[in-house]
Amino acid sequence: METSQDIRFEPIAVMRSPFEEKFAVPRQSGLVPAATGEVVFLPPFDDSAMLQGLRGFSHIWLTFVFDRCVGQGWRAKVRPPRLGGNREVGVWASRSPFRPNFLGLSAVRLIEVVSGPPPRLRVSGVDLLDGTPILDIKPYLPYADAIADAVGGFAPAAPVSPLPVTFSARAEATLAQIDDGASLRSLISGVLALDPRPAYRRGAEPDRVYGVRLAGRNVRWVVGEAGLQVLDLDPIDPD
Amino acid sequence: METSQDIRFEPIAVMRSPFEEKFAVPRQSGLVPAATGEVVFLPPFDDSAMLQGLRGFSHIWLTFVFDRCVGQGWRAKVRPPRLGGNREVGVWASRSPFRPNFLGLSAVRLIEVVSGPPPRLRVSGVDLLDGTPILDIKPYLPYADAIADAVGGFAPAAPVSPLPVTFSARAEATLAQIDDGASLRSLISGVLALDPRPAYRRGAEPDRVYGVRLAGRNVRWVVGEAGLQVLDLDPIDPD
Repeated sequence: METSQDIRFEPIAVMRSPFEEKFAVPRQSGLVPAATGEVVFLPPFDDSAMLQGLRGFSHIWLTFVFDRCVGQGWRAKVRPPRLGGNREVGVWASRSPFRPNFLGLSAVRLIEVVSGPPPRLRVSGVDLLDGTPILDIKPYLPYADAIADAVGGFAPAAPVSPLPVTFSARAEATLAQIDDGASLRSLISGVLALDPRPAYRRGAEPDRVYGVRLAGRNVRWVVGEAGLQVLDLDPIDPD
Repeated sequence: METSQDIRFEPIAVMRSPFEEKFAVPRQSGLVPAATGEVVFLPPFDDSAMLQGLRGFSHIWLTFVFDRCVGQGWRAKVRPPRLGGNREVGVWASRSPFRPNFLGLSAVRLIEVVSGPPPRLRVSGVDLLDGTPILDIKPYLPYADAIADAVGGFAPAAPVSPLPVTFSARAEATLAQIDDGASLRSLISGVLALDPRPAYRRGAEPDRVYGVRLAGRNVRWVVGEAGLQVLDLDPIDPD
């Protein structure tokens, strides 16, 4: 197929999510139910008529662009984190973002259809970075999409066992001052329980402090034998 | 998002399938297991290293372009065949091909990885037209993609009940002369059992002869009270 047959696509919506950097984004959608976000439609697709009937579906597919990876190019082989980061597989056998065309696919739970303007979809189980351009939205059709006898290759049938997550006195004090502290606690617990550390760091450097920008906060934590402790979660811009 | 941020995509593969026209293509993937096809990789993506590890997965996602619909433009509202073709819903609540960006998504069973050259994937449960450009291939991950509690909106939990399909003496004689007549019979039976007639024609014109190009043949049939009968399946180009 010739280059002249390349296809141009236009974002129909943009993702608003608590994930401001790749580190700590869940590896797949649905793993962190507390990770909520909004799909905000862009002109000329900001027409609520296009959403009629969507409320009846519990889940939707988002087809999106891994826009933060486009500049880095794609790779023929990748090292999936689920394999400990030290075994290579072909990119088509992975969900790596460093793939030709940089297309992503996530099934998220549809919480609410907001008429707007602009029309928005409140969703949960998000694994998209804030600002991700979305190209398509489809209803999840259980009879076609939920394949009961599918076998998952090298990826385990269930996600890694979650880490126990506790909060320091300082982190608790911050949560107590926040209007929706319970939601933020659920988000942080859900995200960090999946242990976002690179596999090669696990077991090494027990006192290392990790940090990530999450929901407008600089979340810092350590991992010890008793589990993971959130040290603090100061606002990124504390003026 | 500005038009200057439009994204260009390049087909990574082309679909080879028995479906040569839209009429009679199954409404979703997986509905007709006998519908087999091949995903043929295109340069510079015809590198079998990119497929390493894929054999362990039973199913894969194909993200593709509804290229035969692009010229007709997208619609804000559509009339899904599953609603009898007389109720409108928003395009985002449907899997209609007449959607912004014309992106399709199908989960197909992976039968065989052929090293090539060019590398190819033999798949079944296909619902793509022959020649469809494919933009992405991902492994189907049961733990993330098979959502057990998903609810399907207006689309019924199971496909419509299949029509009983029989073959006329003439059709049987043709099948008997074909090397792989059993496969062709399964394909035709599986496709026509889903009753590709438009909903508004069902119950009307009982003697109407329908025809479709399928697997290089002009398949013709009628639907009566006892079910569907295949009249003949002559080669399209019988030289």
